[in-house]
Parts: sequence; structure tokens; C-alpha cells
Amino acid sequence: MEKEKLTVVKIGGNIVDDESALSAFLASFAGLEGKKILVHGGGKVATRLAERLGVEVKMLHGRRITDQAMLEVVTMVYAGLSNKQVVAGLQAHGVSAIGLSGADGNAIRCIKRPVREIDYGFVGDIVADSVNTSLIGSLLADGHAPVFSAITHDGKGQLLNTNADTIASALAVAMAAAYAVSLVYCFEKRGVLRDVDDEESLIPEIRESDFERLTREGVVADGMIPKLRNAFDAISAGVKDVYVGHAHELNRLQQGQFGTRMV
Amino acid sequence: MEKEKLTVVKIGGNIVDDESALSAFLASFAGLEGKKILVHGGGKVATRLAERLGVEVKMLHGRRITDQAMLEVVTMVYAGLSNKQVVAGLQAHGVSAIGLSGADGNAIRCIKRPVREIDYGFVGDIVADSVNTSLIGSLLADGHAPVFSAITHDGKGQLLNTNADTIASALAVAMAAAYAVSLVYCFEKRGVLRDVDDEESLIPEIRESDFERLTREGVVADGMIPKLRNAFDAISAGVKDVYVGHAHELNRLQQGQFGTRMV
Repeated sequence: MEKEKLTVVKIGGNIVDDESALSAFLASFAGLEGKKILVHGGGKVATRLAERLGVEVKMLHGRRITDQAMLEVVTMVYAGLSNKQVVAGLQAHGVSAIGLSGADGNAIRCIKRPVREIDYGFVGDIVADSVNTSLIGSLLADGHAPVFSAITHDGKGQLLNTNADTIASALAVAMAAAYAVSLVYCFEKRGVLRDVDDEESLIPEIRESDFERLTREGVVADGMIPKLRNAFDAISAGVKDVYVGHAHELNRLQQGQFGTRMV
Repeated sequence: MEKEKLTVVKIGGNIVDDESALSAFLASFAGLEGKKILVHGGGKVATRLAERLGVEVKMLHGRRITDQAMLEVVTMVYAGLSNKQVVAGLQAHGVSAIGLSGADGNAIRCIKRPVREIDYGFVGDIVADSVNTSLIGSLLADGHAPVFSAITHDGKGQLLNTNADTIASALAVAMAAAYAVSLVYCFEKRGVLRDVDDEESLIPEIRESDFERLTREGVVADGMIPKLRNAFDAISAGVKDVYVGHAHELNRLQQGQFGTRMV
């Protein structure tokens, strides 16, 4: 039997923070046919709130550290303000969105990242096979669209700050056993471009066999390399396809004209 | 056929704000047998955050006004920090808590309170019959315990600040069609006392026929009058019984030794 389609879309804080971009995005997301999950990252609202509260944004070797004060800030902004604004916005478009953190229904369990060279503080790494597919499957079957913020827990009462890209990928992989999952990463570019300065040079499709060649040629470089490697890892783990593209163009996904598709 | 038992418990901000009181309460709540819903009010954390952000706490004729800045504060604190701390704490006790605002799954729809003498701002009054009993019933049937913050929406994308006592009562009444609902209000007293200064003078049970007499005698006075009137309204609307008592004693509910029971 063919599996039912499920689309997992991840948006960054740049969309969540921008009222008109968010409103346009939510209309596109509402227009996606079939079952769907949204994962939203954090953004500048959390940084600005931290600044206003005098909570120092701590960096170590270029990595952000989540101390107790910062954990409270991101929990307030990601799981509170941003999540509920997104949910209420989707409800206005007729989507029965339900906001979730990893703590809700034990949806995603993490462990606090072990301290090695760096103590990241209250940052969580997802425990393998910890995604509560039964909860998520049952919400989807009842016609709801789960909306995840990037807050999780350790199952022992501790909330943790977790990377939203990783949450999206873990959800996509876990749900792939039951659904034909498309994983969609929205970012600031139209997709993978042959020439980073030319938005018209979009590469519509990349197969794993092309990936190494494109990296060697320098077409795929810098931050794009781990993004694409993660995409192919998700595909190896059962996800049907992975897209990267611009949030403004999500409405073109159904027509197969959205961003770069990895297969 | 006898209806299954459902307990709806409301706690105030004084419990949510106090780490050790909250921890003791969550253990008691986790120990309650059968299906259950928790509703938590706001508290001083929101007021303190508003102060730290320089958001003025606006009062008009002794009533708090929720302007845009205050709505963001209460959404962050109630639906974000407090809700997720409660949910993660219950998960640690083995309760599959799921945090909800009224926007999530369109659980509770409100209208912004019409402006008459006072413009309350973004305050929501619950729309009659708007509780999504199908969503809540399905979560309960799957073994989850919904945990409501006092944030709702209008279905058109607007979040609203809503009284937690009213949310608890609306949930209890709406679920009474399918369950034998006990509604439990936790507050700072052991229950209704014959002598407010003597915690030992607890009245264990009040029938509606006693209510007017107790009011006339001045035993029930001040803030207790509307609390009890709401309790009897809920009972008239189908709720089995309503309790008022101290959060610290919730563990005595099962033995029928908690606070004052209204029947």
C-alpha cells in the first residue's frame, strides 16, 4: 500500500520575527495539501528580549551558550510568544494547528549535551528513537497540524534548548516509517544556486551522486555542505525527499517548482 | 451507563511561581487517579517581567488592562515559561501532560471583551459552546492530561488574555456531557471556613440550599460569594461537584477529605 504523504516544513526565526513575511508564509503553509507539521526556529525576538532584560548573550568559541536565564528567555519566546502567534495565525487560515514543545506529550526527549571542551548549558541533543510517533500520528489522523518550537525536555523535568533543523529532521525520519515524508527547509535563498549572486541559477534537483562533485566544484560550499549532508542522511534514513528553498515560494511546492530537491 | 470520572483542577499563580509549592502540587496532581485536566493562572512572574521590561501595569477602576505589550508578556509567561515548566514537571512524574492554550487545536474560542465603560484591551470572554470537547476527549482517551494556560484566541489570529477560573469552569461544564466531572479550585485557604481566622473551622460540604443562609449569616462573604455562586452555576450546568481548598492538600481529594465540597 502506498504511504500517505506528510510534509514537514522548517522555518527560521527571520520569518517568525517578520509580521508580514510570517503572514504570507502561514497562508502558503495553510494551502499545502495533506498532512503537515511545522517546526519554527528562534530568532531575534529572543535576542532582543535578552538584551532588554540584561541577560547576557554568552558565546564560547563562536557557539551560543544557554544558561538558566537564557533558557527562560527562549522558553518564553519560542514556546510562548512565537509558537502561539503561529498557531493562532494558522487557526485563522482554518488549519487546526496545535503547538508543541518536546515536553508536551513527551513528543521529543533529549539529553543535556555532555560537557567536553565547551559547556553549552541547557542545550539538548535528541535521544535516538525518542520521537513520540504515536502521539504525532494520532494528532495528524485527527486532522491537526503539530507546530513545534525548538524547546524540548529530558523527561526529568528539565527544559532544554534544541536546534530546530535537527528537530525537523528527527521528526521527518521518525514519521517516515508510516508516511511518505517530504522535509522542507526554508531559508533566505531560493535553493542551491550555481552562482550565489544569481537567484536565477537555481539547481532544481541534486542526487546524492551529484553531491560530491558539486562540493568539489565549489558550487556547494560553506554552510550549505552540512545542510545538504543532513538532507542526504535523512533520505538514507527513509525520508522520501528534502527541499531547500525560500519561504516566500512555499506555495510552489505542490507544483514541484520549489527550491532545490534532494533525492 | 455510569460516566467515567474526570477531575479539572485549577491552581493560581501563587503555586506556579513558587518552585517548592509547585513541585509538591505536581506530585499530588500526578497521584490523582483517573482522567484529569489542569488549568493554571498567571502570577507575579508576569508582573515582574513586565516591570523589568518597563511595561506599565495599567489599571482602570481597579481592573487590570491588557494592552499589546502586556499581552506579549502574559503570552510569554503563561503559555511559554509557566506552561512548559508545569508540563515538564508532570512528565517527570510520569504524567503525559500536554500544554494547551485556547488557540491550540482551537480548544477554546473567545471574543475580545466589548468596550463599554472600560476598554480592557486584549481580554477574551469565552464564546458559549466553543470548547473543543472532541479534541480534549480524544487527548484524555489517549491517556494525556491537558494543561491549560490562561491564553486563548478569537479564531481570527488574535491571542487574548482570559481568566483562568472561567477557563476551568467552562472546561468542566463542556466535558460534563461525557464525564462525571469534579471541578477543583485551589486557593490560599483550606476551604470555606466558619471563622476565617481558624483553619480548623472548615465547612466540609455546602449544599445550594445552605448557600443563601451562609451568605446571610456572613460566613460566606466578600470574594467567596462569587466563587461559590460560580460553583453552583457549574453544578446546575451538569458538573457533579465543585471543591475549593488548599493546593497543599490536593492529595486528600481521593479520600474525600479535601476542602469544601459544593453539591
